[in-house]
Amino acid sequence: MSRLNDMLQEIGGIGRNEDGSITRLGASEGYFQALEQVKMRMEALGMKAEQDPVGNLHGILPGTDPEAKSIVLGSHLDTVIKGGVFDGMLGVTGALEVVYRLKEQGRALKHPLEIWGFNLEESSPLGGTFGSRCVAGMVDAEAPGYAERLAKYGMKPENVRAAKKDLDKYGCYLEYHIEQGDKLDSAGLDIGVVSGIVSVVRYEVTAHGISNHAGTTMMPSRKDALVGMSKLIVGADARARELDDTLVFTVGKLSVAPGQENVIPNEVVATFEMRHMDKAVTDQFYADIQAMAKEISNCEFTFVNTVAKYSTPCDPALIDTIDHVCTRLNISHIIMPSGAGHDANPMAHEGVPIGMVFVPSVKGISHHGDEWTDPKHIDLGADVLYETVLALDKTDL
Amino acid sequence: MSRLNDMLQEIGGIGRNEDGSITRLGASEGYFQALEQVKMRMEALGMKAEQDPVGNLHGILPGTDPEAKSIVLGSHLDTVIKGGVFDGMLGVTGALEVVYRLKEQGRALKHPLEIWGFNLEESSPLGGTFGSRCVAGMVDAEAPGYAERLAKYGMKPENVRAAKKDLDKYGCYLEYHIEQGDKLDSAGLDIGVVSGIVSVVRYEVTAHGISNHAGTTMMPSRKDALVGMSKLIVGADARARELDDTLVFTVGKLSVAPGQENVIPNEVVATFEMRHMDKAVTDQFYADIQAMAKEISNCEFTFVNTVAKYSTPCDPALIDTIDHVCTRLNISHIIMPSGAGHDANPMAHEGVPIGMVFVPSVKGISHHGDEWTDPKHIDLGADVLYETVLALDKTDL
Repeated sequence: MSRLNDMLQEIGGIGRNEDGSITRLGASEGYFQALEQVKMRMEALGMKAEQDPVGNLHGILPGTDPEAKSIVLGSHLDTVIKGGVFDGMLGVTGALEVVYRLKEQGRALKHPLEIWGFNLEESSPLGGTFGSRCVAGMVDAEAPGYAERLAKYGMKPENVRAAKKDLDKYGCYLEYHIEQGDKLDSAGLDIGVVSGIVSVVRYEVTAHGISNHAGTTMMPSRKDALVGMSKLIVGADARARELDDTLVFTVGKLSVAPGQENVIPNEVVATFEMRHMDKAVTDQFYADIQAMAKEISNCEFTFVNTVAKYSTPCDPALIDTIDHVCTRLNISHIIMPSGAGHDANPMAHEGVPIGMVFVPSVKGISHHGDEWTDPKHIDLGADVLYETVLALDKTDL
Repeated sequence: MSRLNDMLQEIGGIGRNEDGSITRLGASEGYFQALEQVKMRMEALGMKAEQDPVGNLHGILPGTDPEAKSIVLGSHLDTVIKGGVFDGMLGVTGALEVVYRLKEQGRALKHPLEIWGFNLEESSPLGGTFGSRCVAGMVDAEAPGYAERLAKYGMKPENVRAAKKDLDKYGCYLEYHIEQGDKLDSAGLDIGVVSGIVSVVRYEVTAHGISNHAGTTMMPSRKDALVGMSKLIVGADARARELDDTLVFTVGKLSVAPGQENVIPNEVVATFEMRHMDKAVTDQFYADIQAMAKEISNCEFTFVNTVAKYSTPCDPALIDTIDHVCTRLNISHIIMPSGAGHDANPMAHEGVPIGMVFVPSVKGISHHGDEWTDPKHIDLGADVLYETVLALDKTDL
C-alpha cells in the first residue's frame, strides 16, 4: 500500500464499528481523535495547524510570495452513522499527501497552501456542511432555536461568528473526493473532473389523519396518515423516475405518531429530498408531488421547505486545468456533475473558484460500511491533485 | 350527571394531558392513583379489596351461598398514550355502580360478586391484556428476555406466578365496555350484545434494502427499503378493503434505518396487524401479502408472527340473558362481534363463560382524546349490566 492509502485507512478507520463500518459523527470523540491525528501530521510537515472555534482543522504552509493568494485544499473529517473510510477523509489525507510530495521533492510553492478538515459536513441538526458554511460566514447563529442546537455540540453563537474567514485571500478551493455514485465504476473510468454540484432541495412533509382503534374502525371510516404517506412516497418515487434520468428522490427519515401497534396513525412526518442540476426540474417535481398529495383521499398534507441549496458550477478554468493534467498523465477521465453536496459549495457561494477531483466508488456504494475505492485509484487521484496544484502555482490565480 | 357518569369522569380523568386526552399507561403513577380511588370506593361499599402481585385491583363482595360460584365483572384501569376517559374505566366504574345499586336497594346476592380492575391491558412490551392473562395463568414469565421486560415495570417472574387465580370458582365474566367502533352510533342503537371477539394477528415485517448516498445513487440503481415497504402497505391496504368488509388492517408502528435525510434506507421494520372473526380470512390475507411482497422489486421482506390471538366466542347463554334484559327494558340493541380484544379473552381462554355489553362510541372514535359516549348511554349500559347480574344470580351459573 502507498503512504496515502496507509494514512487513509489509519485515520479514516477511527470510529470503526463491529460490522466494519465507520461512525465518526461531527464533533464526537472519534472526530476529535481523527482531527488530532491529522494535526500532528501537519505539524510534522512544518505547517501551522490549529483547531478553529467550530471544530474545523486548519493548516497553512507558507508560500514564497507573501502577496500571493492561497491554494486551498480540503474536505471533511466526519462520517455518517455506519459510513465508510473514504468519504471526506480522502480529501484531507489527499491534501496531506500533496504536502508530503512537495517536501520529498524539495519544492516550495509560490502560493501559500492551506488545508481544511471540516467538521459536521454530514447532515445534522445544525444543517449539512456546517463547518465550511461557518468559514464562509453563511451560518445564521441568531436563527430561532439555533443557539440551543449549537449548545448540544458544545458551541455558542460567538463560536460561529469567530470562525468566519476572509475568503478574498483564497485563490481557489480544490476538493478531492470519492464519486459516491457508480458512473465512473460502471464506465471503467479512473477520474471524474467535476463540472458542478447538483442542487439539494428538501421538504418536511406531514401527513395528517385521525388516530383511532385499529380493531374497531372499519376500513372505509379510516383516515390513516401512514397509508396516505405511503401512497405519496410510492407516487413520488415513480414520478421521479419518469420526469428526468438524473433526478433523484429520497425519503430518508420518517416517523409515525402515536406509534402503537393497535392505533391508527394520525401523523406521519417524512423528509422528501430531491436533487438535480436544474432548478426547473426540482420545481416541476415538487409541483407534481403537491398535486399528487391533493388527490390522496382521507389524508391532508403540509409541506415545509427546509433546505434549498441550488446547484453550484465549478470554475471553468479549474475544470480545464484538471482536465489537462489528466490528459497529460494519460488517465482516463470524464467531466461530470456531482450528485452530492460538498464543502466546496459554501466556498463557491462566497466567490471562491472551486474545482473537484472524483475517483470511482466500487458499485457506487457510499454512506455504508461497504464503501470502497481501489487503492490504485486513490493514488491516481492524488497524482492529479498534486499536478493540479503545481500547475496552478505557476499562475497568479 | 348520574353517579356513574360523575365517577367515570373523576377517576377516568386521572392522567389528563393539556389537550384533554388521557395518558394513564399501565403500572404508571397515574394508574396506581386510579387504582387507589377505585379501591377506596370498594372498601366503602363493604368489599374486600386488594392489589394483586401484578398491579391488578381485585374486589370481592361475599354472597349468601358460600358454595356458589362467583359472578365476575371487570375491565382495565390503564389507557393508551393520549387515549380517552371511557376505554376500560367504564367497565370498572360500571361494576362499582352495580354494587352501589345493590346496597341502595338492600339486596344481597346469592353468588359472590367479584370485580377486577386490570393492569396493562393496552399494548406494551409485556403483551396486551397482561394483567388478565396473569390472572388466567397464561403468561410465560420464563420466556427469553421476559424477566428483563418485567423488571422495567418493577415486577419479577414470581409476581406473574403468584397472580394466577383458580378460575373454577368463576361462574361467568361480564365486561361492560364502549364499542370503540361506529356501528352502534351510526345505526342509532343503544346497546351492543357482543357475540364474540375477533382474532388479532400481528406480524413484524422487515423490508431489507441497501443504504447508499441519496445524491449520487441514480434511481434505477436503488434498493430503497422504505419505497418497498410503502408499496407493500399501499397494496395490503387495498387488498384488505377488497377481501372482506369486516377485515381490518393497520400498520401502527414503523421505523426507518439508518434514518438520515441524505441516506437511502436499508431497513424498515413495521407491524402489520389484521383482525377478523374468521381465521380463514386472516390466513388468506396474510398469504396475499406475502405474494405481493415477492412481486416488489429491489427489496426483500421477512415476516415474523408476533401475535396470534384467535377469535373468542361469547357464551350463548350469557348472550341470551343480556339480549332478554335489553328486550325487557325496551332498549334498542343488536348482537355484534367486538373488533377489539378485551380482558374477557383470557377469561374465555381458561374456560370462564364470558359476556360483554357495548355502548356507542360517538363517531367510533377511541384511543384518542375525542373518545366520547353519551351520558345517557353510560347509564343505560349500567341498567343492562345490573339487571343481567340480578338475572344471573337467580341461576346456579
